[in-house]
Amino acid sequence: MKNSFGNSVQLTVFGESHGPAIGVVLDGLAPGIRVDRDFIASQLSRRRPYGPTDTPRVEKDEYSILSGERGGFTTGTPLTIVIPNCNVRSSDYPDGIARPSHADYAARMKYHGFEDTRGGGHFSGRVTAGIVAAGAICIAALRGKGIRLATHILSCAGILDRGFSGSVDEIETVESRNFPVLSAEAEEPMRERILEARRDGDSVGGVVQTCITGLPAGVGEPWFDSLESLLSHAVFSIGGIKGIEFGSGFAMASMRGSEANDPLRMSGGSVVTETNHNGGINGGISNGMPVIFDMAVKPTPSISRLQKSIDMSCWADADLKLAGRHDPAIVRRICVVVTSVVAVTLCDALSLRYGTDWLAEKR
Amino acid sequence: MKNSFGNSVQLTVFGESHGPAIGVVLDGLAPGIRVDRDFIASQLSRRRPYGPTDTPRVEKDEYSILSGERGGFTTGTPLTIVIPNCNVRSSDYPDGIARPSHADYAARMKYHGFEDTRGGGHFSGRVTAGIVAAGAICIAALRGKGIRLATHILSCAGILDRGFSGSVDEIETVESRNFPVLSAEAEEPMRERILEARRDGDSVGGVVQTCITGLPAGVGEPWFDSLESLLSHAVFSIGGIKGIEFGSGFAMASMRGSEANDPLRMSGGSVVTETNHNGGINGGISNGMPVIFDMAVKPTPSISRLQKSIDMSCWADADLKLAGRHDPAIVRRICVVVTSVVAVTLCDALSLRYGTDWLAEKR
Amino acid sequence: MKNSFGNSVQLTVFGESHGPAIGVVLDGLAPGIRVDRDFIASQLSRRRPYGPTDTPRVEKDEYSILSGERGGFTTGTPLTIVIPNCNVRSSDYPDGIARPSHADYAARMKYHGFEDTRGGGHFSGRVTAGIVAAGAICIAALRGKGIRLATHILSCAGILDRGFSGSVDEIETVESRNFPVLSAEAEEPMRERILEARRDGDSVGGVVQTCITGLPAGVGEPWFDSLESLLSHAVFSIGGIKGIEFGSGFAMASMRGSEANDPLRMSGGSVVTETNHNGGINGGISNGMPVIFDMAVKPTPSISRLQKSIDMSCWADADLKLAGRHDPAIVRRICVVVTSVVAVTLCDALSLRYGTDWLAEKR
Amino acid sequence: MKNSFGNSVQLTVFGESHGPAIGVVLDGLAPGIRVDRDFIASQLSRRRPYGPTDTPRVEKDEYSILSGERGGFTTGTPLTIVIPNCNVRSSDYPDGIARPSHADYAARMKYHGFEDTRGGGHFSGRVTAGIVAAGAICIAALRGKGIRLATHILSCAGILDRGFSGSVDEIETVESRNFPVLSAEAEEPMRERILEARRDGDSVGGVVQTCITGLPAGVGEPWFDSLESLLSHAVFSIGGIKGIEFGSGFAMASMRGSEANDPLRMSGGSVVTETNHNGGINGGISNGMPVIFDMAVKPTPSISRLQKSIDMSCWADADLKLAGRHDPAIVRRICVVVTSVVAVTLCDALSLRYGTDWLAEKR
Repeated sequence: MKNSFGNSVQLTVFGESHGPAIGVVLDGLAPGIRVDRDFIASQLSRRRPYGPTDTPRVEKDEYSILSGERGGFTTGTPLTIVIPNCNVRSSDYPDGIARPSHADYAARMKYHGFEDTRGGGHFSGRVTAGIVAAGAICIAALRGKGIRLATHILSCAGILDRGFSGSVDEIETVESRNFPVLSAEAEEPMRERILEARRDGDSVGGVVQTCITGLPAGVGEPWFDSLESLLSHAVFSIGGIKGIEFGSGFAMASMRGSEANDPLRMSGGSVVTETNHNGGINGGISNGMPVIFDMAVKPTPSISRLQKSIDMSCWADADLKLAGRHDPAIVRRICVVVTSVVAVTLCDALSLRYGTDWLAEKR
Repeated sequence: MKNSFGNSVQLTVFGESHGPAIGVVLDGLAPGIRVDRDFIASQLSRRRPYGPTDTPRVEKDEYSILSGERGGFTTGTPLTIVIPNCNVRSSDYPDGIARPSHADYAARMKYHGFEDTRGGGHFSGRVTAGIVAAGAICIAALRGKGIRLATHILSCAGILDRGFSGSVDEIETVESRNFPVLSAEAEEPMRERILEARRDGDSVGGVVQTCITGLPAGVGEPWFDSLESLLSHAVFSIGGIKGIEFGSGFAMASMRGSEANDPLRMSGGSVVTETNHNGGINGGISNGMPVIFDMAVKPTPSISRLQKSIDMSCWADADLKLAGRHDPAIVRRICVVVTSVVAVTLCDALSLRYGTDWLAEKR
Repeated sequence: MKNSFGNSVQLTVFGESHGPAIGVVLDGLAPGIRVDRDFIASQLSRRRPYGPTDTPRVEKDEYSILSGERGGFTTGTPLTIVIPNCNVRSSDYPDGIARPSHADYAARMKYHGFEDTRGGGHFSGRVTAGIVAAGAICIAALRGKGIRLATHILSCAGILDRGFSGSVDEIETVESRNFPVLSAEAEEPMRERILEARRDGDSVGGVVQTCITGLPAGVGEPWFDSLESLLSHAVFSIGGIKGIEFGSGFAMASMRGSEANDPLRMSGGSVVTETNHNGGINGGISNGMPVIFDMAVKPTPSISRLQKSIDMSCWADADLKLAGRHDPAIVRRICVVVTSVVAVTLCDALSLRYGTDWLAEKR
Repeated sequence: MKNSFGNSVQLTVFGESHGPAIGVVLDGLAPGIRVDRDFIASQLSRRRPYGPTDTPRVEKDEYSILSGERGGFTTGTPLTIVIPNCNVRSSDYPDGIARPSHADYAARMKYHGFEDTRGGGHFSGRVTAGIVAAGAICIAALRGKGIRLATHILSCAGILDRGFSGSVDEIETVESRNFPVLSAEAEEPMRERILEARRDGDSVGGVVQTCITGLPAGVGEPWFDSLESLLSHAVFSIGGIKGIEFGSGFAMASMRGSEANDPLRMSGGSVVTETNHNGGINGGISNGMPVIFDMAVKPTPSISRLQKSIDMSCWADADLKLAGRHDPAIVRRICVVVTSVVAVTLCDALSLRYGTDWLAEKR
């Protein structure tokens, strides 16, 4: 489906970094879900660059809802959000020289030179602003059903935050911080490392971690539309993410079954597991425990150091020295994007399971 | 789409472990692709247990092609493969007590007790036999277009194989070995650790790695149907896989951009990268370099040690002591399943990009 | 999706007329729906030829359920039905000469000669036996929710039956008759005209009409997945159907708005319309009135008269004289196929709207 | 997929009649297709009301392309077109009283009162302006591959035009006329009847007919995605269409096989049929002959006569007297909408068959 995903709730993205606007169409969401414009704005502000650890390109992200909303509620018809591009400086990007680790060359092979290359075009992280706006509506809808989720920086440039254990408190802690970490003391060292990289004309990556609580057991499919399949499908659409692991993930590969198996127990009439190595998913289906997964974020490819590359206008080797405005790290800004795309995925899976009105029905 | 995936080429699986048969429908593959029954049989034999490192349940995997093939070639209509279940011993499985780390409890929440629980039912690894049969046809079709792929055991219970660098030789080495490793010397220690686990009534996991060579640049979509999205979606349908990373994956999270960026160079008229940290994918689109990714395989959940669990017939705590026939490790057998599901995914993406006849056209 | 349709409930067909078997996979149906084997058999017998008005090729239609059923109920996993082909006489079909009005030439252009041409191959009406078996399960599931449907012969070779007004009685009348008409007196003249055509080595067509009662208001989508879109999409997959009209259909084209508009009224607390020119659908969405639509069935293309055609082995004009076993009319047999494919479509739309368990929940 | 359709090329519509804007996202179209803004404008003007036979609400249809176009060519990324709503007079529509034959009541059952009811909301014909804009790009792309299509008024209020025989001349004739008929002399009597209906506070319907020439043989699928399925699915999304028939359609129901079968012949190295009762489609697949189909358009439901209806604010019987601005007939304006939605459908089917670059490759 290319620039869309979802079966019952479908998200479509559009737009180029230096075109007139970027945006999304969110279709299939129940009618009667509250559209909280302040919350959308606050989520967009979490994605926006600020301070020296982010790119100096700051957009105001003034969005318009063109359809699908009336009187502060979803109508049930396609909800379209458009965010105009204002702060555009195309000349920062050298024409024809592919940026290593970016989509430039791959895109040329796909689009034959008709692609809009300015500012990364359709591949730009700018497009995620629309996803964040749509995600805000989905996050609020999920909250109405007792489902909470957040994403924090688990590690950045060697500095570690502590991991999610699966409590709602942790989610609220992350939501309350503009620099999304669980341990407040992780922020400063992470920022320092990022600034260090910036001073070196370089960039850093990290690992981000998402936690979902309150998801009912029984969501997901045994084959192909497993919950891991759906979540990874959605998450890998975000540029810069190169790995995902659920629960203990790669660490499980070194465990024995007797360590990795999560013992089941009754607890207050509910079924729980004593450990959660499986990250809340068994056989592709949610088991009622917190769904937790980590994602590897590669260092931002746009760096100001001299790089070896090719000139696609003459297909010859070339050196690249990027000016422009770059993020020395996107781990902070990517968190809200991940949360957003995950929220849309959950709204889709839940609407498919429980029907198209379910997300709204308890108001 | 539940038990199906794909846009232009679609694979549907069906069947329960102890029902009459398992199978697949592979729809949308070009007409005129050779169906090599010997190759299908040899791929099925790679998935089949043998020797003390695998489960003693051995099925003959005698498959029938019910439709979509005539005179040794695909017809272009849905190709259906059915594999009857013969060697069935349901009494091995204790009724009502959920097996930890298995789908039993999650499936109960989803199917309300109507699910066929015998032998894991529809969640059983047995279902992958059909995927392997379908995959064999796709692997051969890809080979006809110069695209090769294989999966090996990168690590098992602490023993490491060397990783793919991306050559066709490596792929042929893996294909030539029943125990799929690149360094022959890795086999014995891995087998020993697996037998050790078996002696302990336990199991081990590992990491498997897939390499695809010859994939044209330009395949995949910028958002949502990125090549990483498509591959992870397909791979996470396989029970036991809990993580995936492309290229250097999680290791990229600790690199700086200047290390992680893959320098582009012209080489013999083609564009190559000097390193391949991105695993052959930029911005969700293939860049012509080998596509390489690792997957975490958790230790087999079925172990014969005493485990804490719950009895779903009365919703009370219960102890579980599994008899039955179990794999102390599935890392060997899972390799051909991963290769198969990846091959179907590539046939789908390539048919979508180049048209439904492309895979057959150069015969 | 080629040989599949559906979003939440998906039907996939496979098989060739003279291959080993034909069949279907029905995926996404709720767990816990009763699978009534007698009803499946009786529906299959409605599709089976009998007597002089049908083809002398009679298959026993002994089907197997390979997966997705246990203890007489759906499990919620893919339900696979296979019907072996037994009574096969391929030599009846002249090789290479395209049969006019059949798919032979179009299929050659699509499949380049790899298609199985024997007995119509994958295009054969034989494939509809699987659809009827799957449809039987869906019809029973719908009945459990108070939704009834049937299809009768509205006209055949100039002989008219009366049309549905929308009562459950009418549906039961049609269900009770092997020759599906509302007015018993229409049967004999229709049969006579069919036999007349057979004596002339010719064939006749007709119009069939479907009625659905009890469908809740609010099902369908405003654009693209309108209920008319979904129903016509499903129905036009059946070979021989060349037209569909909802409610008064083409007759509405000659009405004025004041005649065609269906006045709304309250009746016993419910909303009804005084007339039903719109066939129970407004703006693509069900309005709670009976959904009624007519379909044009072309005369069976296989006739024994001499026909002008082409020889595809040498691309030259050729005469065609078909021997073989043909239906002089398929209007009787097509009725149960239409009902079946409509039942699957409704199960899909209702599962999407009300959730995947809805069809089973009130047992 | 609700407000979207298509596999390889996907169209999504959004917007409400009296909201800020309506629009479309057209995703998956090849890069390098010329975007001719004059042609888009001229197509939009064909849809726009003018003169006394149409509604007096005239919108300027000044559209913006927000994404997916650069330098006059498609980029291959999602192409978004937005058309602001300007000429809005909501007070014309009485609140709460459902308009007979409109979606009002069905929409209430679906959206529970959250729907935007002003001016028909998302159900408004206004939304088709976006489809026409997207269709213009597809029509031009098809023309570049030798595929032409047009839709004319076959009958209106009892006045007949002659039918398409399948020549390119006929298509150009229709394209050249603002009132799309083949026989110029049909225009005046049709207009008179429409005005007569307007004077009576009433409306009329008609039959429109589409012809596609130059479509290669081999497009479409045997089951479920038959060309008839795809075209009817797309066409029935347009409000007001209540029937479709391919080729001789319902008239075939009264023919014998010997009349209805289209004899095949070789002609100048190509295969043709001497008649075209099947409308260019056999077994769901194009056969290379012109694809011709008729659609029934019901009379516009908005009439100014007094109508019986219900008040949805208190669920009681009520009389309805519509003021507002209405079309006494939409047969003229609907033609370009049908052509547009068919063009998108063809671009999708052709891109799926021949690959995503095919539509652009011969520039």
